Amino acid sequence: MTELKLHPLRINADRLNQRIEQLAQIGALQGGGVCRLALSDEDRAGRDLVCGWMDELGLDVSIDKIGNVVGLRRGELSGPPVMTGSHIDTVATGGPYDGNLGVLAGLEVVQCLNEAGITTRHPLAVAFFTNEEGARFAPDMMGSGVHQGSMDLDAMLAVTGIDGKTVGAELDRIGYSGDAATGDYRARNYVELHIEQGPVLEQCDLQVGAVNGVQGISWTEFTIRGQSNHAGTTPMEFRHDPGYVAARISVKARRLAGKIGQGQVATVGQIKLNPNLVNVIPREAIITVDLRNMDEALLQQAEHQLSRFVEQVASEEGVTINARKLARFEPVHFDPAMTQRVQQFAELFDYSCQQMPSGAGHDAQMFAPNCPTTMIFVPSQGGISHNIREYTSPQQIERGANVLLQTLLYCANQEQN
Amino acid sequence: MTELKLHPLRINADRLNQRIEQLAQIGALQGGGVCRLALSDEDRAGRDLVCGWMDELGLDVSIDKIGNVVGLRRGELSGPPVMTGSHIDTVATGGPYDGNLGVLAGLEVVQCLNEAGITTRHPLAVAFFTNEEGARFAPDMMGSGVHQGSMDLDAMLAVTGIDGKTVGAELDRIGYSGDAATGDYRARNYVELHIEQGPVLEQCDLQVGAVNGVQGISWTEFTIRGQSNHAGTTPMEFRHDPGYVAARISVKARRLAGKIGQGQVATVGQIKLNPNLVNVIPREAIITVDLRNMDEALLQQAEHQLSRFVEQVASEEGVTINARKLARFEPVHFDPAMTQRVQQFAELFDYSCQQMPSGAGHDAQMFAPNCPTTMIFVPSQGGISHNIREYTSPQQIERGANVLLQTLLYCANQEQN
Repeated sequence: MTELKLHPLRINADRLNQRIEQLAQIGALQGGGVCRLALSDEDRAGRDLVCGWMDELGLDVSIDKIGNVVGLRRGELSGPPVMTGSHIDTVATGGPYDGNLGVLAGLEVVQCLNEAGITTRHPLAVAFFTNEEGARFAPDMMGSGVHQGSMDLDAMLAVTGIDGKTVGAELDRIGYSGDAATGDYRARNYVELHIEQGPVLEQCDLQVGAVNGVQGISWTEFTIRGQSNHAGTTPMEFRHDPGYVAARISVKARRLAGKIGQGQVATVGQIKLNPNLVNVIPREAIITVDLRNMDEALLQQAEHQLSRFVEQVASEEGVTINARKLARFEPVHFDPAMTQRVQQFAELFDYSCQQMPSGAGHDAQMFAPNCPTTMIFVPSQGGISHNIREYTSPQQIERGANVLLQTLLYCANQEQN
Repeated sequence: MTELKLHPLRINADRLNQRIEQLAQIGALQGGGVCRLALSDEDRAGRDLVCGWMDELGLDVSIDKIGNVVGLRRGELSGPPVMTGSHIDTVATGGPYDGNLGVLAGLEVVQCLNEAGITTRHPLAVAFFTNEEGARFAPDMMGSGVHQGSMDLDAMLAVTGIDGKTVGAELDRIGYSGDAATGDYRARNYVELHIEQGPVLEQCDLQVGAVNGVQGISWTEFTIRGQSNHAGTTPMEFRHDPGYVAARISVKARRLAGKIGQGQVATVGQIKLNPNLVNVIPREAIITVDLRNMDEALLQQAEHQLSRFVEQVASEEGVTINARKLARFEPVHFDPAMTQRVQQFAELFDYSCQQMPSGAGHDAQMFAPNCPTTMIFVPSQGGISHNIREYTSPQQIERGANVLLQTLLYCANQEQN
């Protein structure tokens, strides 16, 4: 491996931030934030804007059968491109950066290369993928999943959204049902810039995160049924209180995460008691536990210990518990060399940087099984995302985009091997 | 004290149960249960029915300014009557027994005495009190509170109900705004028969409860504010999770009750997380804790230990907690000799009986400061009350009413002292 050096080229931060602001006008919410649900009229307008920019930059734009848009920039050689991108759909109350940053930073990299008259050895592609958020149509990461062959095209086209319309019909309606094939698109590498959507960078005073993978996720909903009764007249020894059992599970989840350590997180975000009255022992409690870890074995250990605890406490309290898996994804590991390269470029810039996992899912994880993949994170103010208050400063964006430029240039100029 | 003996007189269980069934027709709900909210048209019809029975039994009926109805049966002596009674208003989905049993058993006692030609030494009174439930107008136990001088008549007449109407206007409308004075009515004794509304008698295989008082009640609502964040991207050490703190409080409440013992109960009936999503650490949790004990010192100990714990866990987790007292009533102690008498009569009948506190509030507690007072409990099937499935069998009612008859006869024939 040759020694890594910074290329003198730098991105134009003002231009990038102007594009981010311009795209955020489409679907802008009163009071701030953006609503651009996948395949909505707003999504179409956003797509049209970005496709126009791709055209202006001389990219060869293709649209595939699930509506993914890829803008290709020729290299000296043909063959699979070095790819970057993300998504431009948002949740119903989203911000300007989630997804959009990665796509528009890719365009900024292309414009820099164009202006500097640089032709890379390998082609370079900037893509945006359909319905990453999953806010209108489940599952999320749909476009990249179909693109990389891990989701079935026809099944995804048939998916019905929260408003009763299908992906296929909505693609047709907005004019983004393309001809390009899906499922066997091969990239040489994939690198995605994204806001962290969490508090780690900010709280650890880091400027850039070199993302080494995506945490495995296990969501379980426990429905606990006991015996409703009067809070005053029911002695403690006669109680079968599902609310108490839910509380025990919540406390256990926290302790489990602490005991396992090594990046294990556990969250009880949802509790519902029925009937939920001050003076009535509930008859039912519904509680969710969200467990995540980069290490599948540790994640399984957490699941196992939790379910053993749940059985034990249910038996002690005389309640019944029904467990339902709401979601289960294994961890995704990015290419260590790619992640290392991101970290090295960041350090050559003197940006504070550490390797870290992503707590959220991203399009990049669909590429990880098929080509060397990594991601670059920049801080989210207050760790806030999927929220109209989502914010990342122009300086933070500039740093991330410069690391993206260096990484893409490096990958696109590598010897073919 | 003379040795206690059973009087040969017995109540007529069929007649009593027929009256209960007949009253339950008024405001009967489709599918079972009764809705006879205080001062509604249904309440008026129920009042008219009971007043008609009082007239038939030769009672001297008076109505006071808060709508309480007292039917007086003369004794050999004048002076304060030995009193029994309860209420005939119900919650919106109530049953046939709560309150009604005590009033109609009182009438049954009068009818037995009439038929046996017995004149007691002291007068006997059967009353029903306005708005015991508090379901339409707060506070509950309003009629008995005004009757015994612990609530202000004018303030209560001005109370606005859930439908925007006032107690005073509704009393006028249904024709139950009477002339009798309130606030200084003195009874010689007060004895109230009521369903337990809890599971203790059934679960302990007891037929009658001799009620020694009403538990003190302490309701606190804790509003816990932390920092909302992403469940995946927020390491455990950065969390300020109000849901976790709520769970700790819930578990502590249970342990506190176990440690204090001596009848201490603690219930978390209400938890609300915001935003209550599986993958979001909540920003806010609202939780209520219901503490009850017959012993004011122990109840204060429970409150104190809980609030110390809440402070400690809030500081550990870095959240703020706002505590709001929703209700606080000191325990009410009934007259030990009266309660003892109830137990003795039950045992002379060979009914299984124990002394026990009431977990719910009753009209009797308004009399307790002013005259020797007690209550008689009969079992509630499944501990269920304030529910259309409320049920107490005719045999159980017969036992309770016979104990009431004996106790009233005993009190009404006591030497004046």
